[in-house]
Amino acid sequence: MRSFLKTTDFTAAELSALMDAASRLKRGESLGDLRDRTMGMVFFNPSLRTRTSFEVGLFQLKGHAVNLSVGQGMWELEYRDGTVMDGRAAEHIKEAAPVLGRYVDILGVRAFAEGKDWEADRLDPVLSAFEKHSGVPVINMESAVWHPCQALADGMTWQELGVSGKDRIVLTWAYHPKALPMAVPNSVMLMAAQMGLHLTVARPEAFALDRDLVRESSLIASRNGGVLEETDDWGSVKGAKIVYAKSWGSLRAYGRPDEEKEIRLNYKGWQVTAKEMAGGARFMHCLPVRRNVVVADEVLDSAASAVVQQAENRLHTQKALLLKLLGGAI
Amino acid sequence: MRSFLKTTDFTAAELSALMDAASRLKRGESLGDLRDRTMGMVFFNPSLRTRTSFEVGLFQLKGHAVNLSVGQGMWELEYRDGTVMDGRAAEHIKEAAPVLGRYVDILGVRAFAEGKDWEADRLDPVLSAFEKHSGVPVINMESAVWHPCQALADGMTWQELGVSGKDRIVLTWAYHPKALPMAVPNSVMLMAAQMGLHLTVARPEAFALDRDLVRESSLIASRNGGVLEETDDWGSVKGAKIVYAKSWGSLRAYGRPDEEKEIRLNYKGWQVTAKEMAGGARFMHCLPVRRNVVVADEVLDSAASAVVQQAENRLHTQKALLLKLLGGAI
Amino acid sequence: MRSFLKTTDFTAAELSALMDAASRLKRGESLGDLRDRTMGMVFFNPSLRTRTSFEVGLFQLKGHAVNLSVGQGMWELEYRDGTVMDGRAAEHIKEAAPVLGRYVDILGVRAFAEGKDWEADRLDPVLSAFEKHSGVPVINMESAVWHPCQALADGMTWQELGVSGKDRIVLTWAYHPKALPMAVPNSVMLMAAQMGLHLTVARPEAFALDRDLVRESSLIASRNGGVLEETDDWGSVKGAKIVYAKSWGSLRAYGRPDEEKEIRLNYKGWQVTAKEMAGGARFMHCLPVRRNVVVADEVLDSAASAVVQQAENRLHTQKALLLKLLGGAI
Repeated sequence: MRSFLKTTDFTAAELSALMDAASRLKRGESLGDLRDRTMGMVFFNPSLRTRTSFEVGLFQLKGHAVNLSVGQGMWELEYRDGTVMDGRAAEHIKEAAPVLGRYVDILGVRAFAEGKDWEADRLDPVLSAFEKHSGVPVINMESAVWHPCQALADGMTWQELGVSGKDRIVLTWAYHPKALPMAVPNSVMLMAAQMGLHLTVARPEAFALDRDLVRESSLIASRNGGVLEETDDWGSVKGAKIVYAKSWGSLRAYGRPDEEKEIRLNYKGWQVTAKEMAGGARFMHCLPVRRNVVVADEVLDSAASAVVQQAENRLHTQKALLLKLLGGAI
Repeated sequence: MRSFLKTTDFTAAELSALMDAASRLKRGESLGDLRDRTMGMVFFNPSLRTRTSFEVGLFQLKGHAVNLSVGQGMWELEYRDGTVMDGRAAEHIKEAAPVLGRYVDILGVRAFAEGKDWEADRLDPVLSAFEKHSGVPVINMESAVWHPCQALADGMTWQELGVSGKDRIVLTWAYHPKALPMAVPNSVMLMAAQMGLHLTVARPEAFALDRDLVRESSLIASRNGGVLEETDDWGSVKGAKIVYAKSWGSLRAYGRPDEEKEIRLNYKGWQVTAKEMAGGARFMHCLPVRRNVVVADEVLDSAASAVVQQAENRLHTQKALLLKLLGGAI
Repeated sequence: MRSFLKTTDFTAAELSALMDAASRLKRGESLGDLRDRTMGMVFFNPSLRTRTSFEVGLFQLKGHAVNLSVGQGMWELEYRDGTVMDGRAAEHIKEAAPVLGRYVDILGVRAFAEGKDWEADRLDPVLSAFEKHSGVPVINMESAVWHPCQALADGMTWQELGVSGKDRIVLTWAYHPKALPMAVPNSVMLMAAQMGLHLTVARPEAFALDRDLVRESSLIASRNGGVLEETDDWGSVKGAKIVYAKSWGSLRAYGRPDEEKEIRLNYKGWQVTAKEMAGGARFMHCLPVRRNVVVADEVLDSAASAVVQQAENRLHTQKALLLKLLGGAI
């Protein structure tokens, strides 16, 4: 029984096979089905693409996905060990996870960071509790640290766009009115490393990603013939083959929203416009994206934008993933 | 690729064929299926009948409907062009619609009026944006201006009740504690006109429907041998074959709720009771309906009421519609 | 057409046949399917197990369950006769139930007590209205008074655990920060009586269950060779074969939350710990359960706990129930 909590749960060869399978599914080939199989999707946070693509994907494979939104028609869940549960949470994951595991064949869990203490959040306690207690494979549908399903779709999109080790992908921080999660940049960085690609993380110094995660990705990149580099130079966006924009919060001011906001406001200029795309780059973003804040209309409305293709690939890669985890064929 | 945003998206002959197909489906005949096909239902407003009838209908046709409620487990969507998205909406329909269009085969959208400015609302901006950007057929599940799926079911019900051009349908305004949408009266008026029926719109002068929409329906009625007339005489309800009650807000005080309420309170007497039904009329309402406000218990609990039959026909007509838009058979 | 509102809607022999069928389904046997059949699940209150187990169960039987949450993407429903509906509820069950009955083959309804007046709540007005007006079989997914699906699963679990008439089940009240519903203890008491088992209800005097319900269960127990007894002695928990813990509110202070809380706080010591389980008892609870409030970690984390097995049996018993009500085979 294998789970998919981060892309390194699979070898580079396995990821490659998954992306190949996804491409075949996209072309309409059949790679088997998941008849009578069910997935429970547990959302602690909102979703559009993830929920729809998993539900449609399961249906197309003759299975069924149950959509469970914590706090909407369902009470809150406790994850801490040993708590006296006299507060808001009516149930512990130690019960909820194994019960769901008796009903369904696989669980998907989306649980963002609490946003107070990075040392606590980086342990992904909710996701880990589901993985530990459910007794079935668990798919990370975005946690505090990782969004591996997004990374899989992104990897497939890079392949479709012809990105090779000779090209440069710039993953750039962008301004946004809120401090957003870091799961996507962490996962994009790791996936590029596993694929042996050349990735530049461009961000103001205050928005540097977690040191340990950068180091891990860096090692993996080297091992696979890729490059991972960081810069605080907004100008580095120019000349890239791929400009992958994403906003995220500052670890330096983690859990201190006023301070975080003050830092952020210094970088309102980090918005992707036609100017940055001038060298023929393709634009990527995991969506949802705020137009004319993170990126200008002129980019999203141009042929340079690959965001819809990227989102579509969520469907195909997740179908391949489900077939691998439940069917074993891939 | 055809959408269904208002009943005039189909010719009278096409509407007739749809209603015939719906009758055959109601009798248990099979007219093909939609195996492996999916519909995304995007609700910006609540629903009971629409959501359930589409979900059940798709399932009965071997397809699947995904239920997406904006604001419930999903963020708000922007529809205006060129906005700087630094407010509440986290995603633009320009991204959400094409992404959903890559996942599903058809989209249904429910988006009521904002209720501030009729000139803006009557453009149905949310629905139009989905139609423009999704790349798949769009079904209007009730917009500011139209509720064509309701009109289809109503047309089928008129046929079942033996309504012909010689009979009189009275579509009557009724009192209600809130200013309600106008999509149903607009659509009932248009559908009767396309079917060449005789429809009287009875409403206080302050609740006259949009001038242009009345004129459009009037022209279509004439062309089809039907009649469309308006009156502010509550007494006109008597002697009708069909009393179709519905409350709606006043365009005269659109976006000014206090003034609207004051106008409305003058017409608390517009409630359908046994007295108005005395001539053997059948009672219709699109539901939900407030008992003993819009219509008295004695009417809804009598054999004169056709509201459940009318609601049931939502299922059959929508199945025929889906087969037409996706299967092409009808 | 039969509904399932309480376990006495079936004879002891029918319940036994249902549990046998559930065991066969659990072992993977096929007992037919419900192809093309649909269930509407109407939730006035939150759910995890009930919703998931019915949705998965229907899918496994080739049917489909529609999940409708009142107040979430759906307006409130009125159930009182003769009301002038000028308040919050936009629709009466007299319309909603028969309309849903035209769309689906069976309805499930969850409607907890209002918690103000026990004499009103004990009539289960919402559930009764659905049963009266829908025209299709109705399954009680937990009402003010009964939770028969839980009782079915519990009965199956007792059988699996080898409980016979010679053993003693203690259904014990436990402390909880809120006044909880009584449907589960009522139903467990009734089910044990129908199965001819020996059940002790242990609770502080102020938490005695409804007199009439106890009398009814007592009579049924006698008739079936079982025993039903009540005690206010917390010590009676010791020596049981099954310790079934559950918190519930006090009828003595029903609808008076401050008074209720004061009473409750006197019994914080009613928590199941390893001490009470010392004689080799198995622990049961319907879930959700608050750890270290109702029951200590040391019990739930030990091999004595049967709560996950019990929850799993919801799935199997409900599948058998659906087959019986819709298929007739069982």
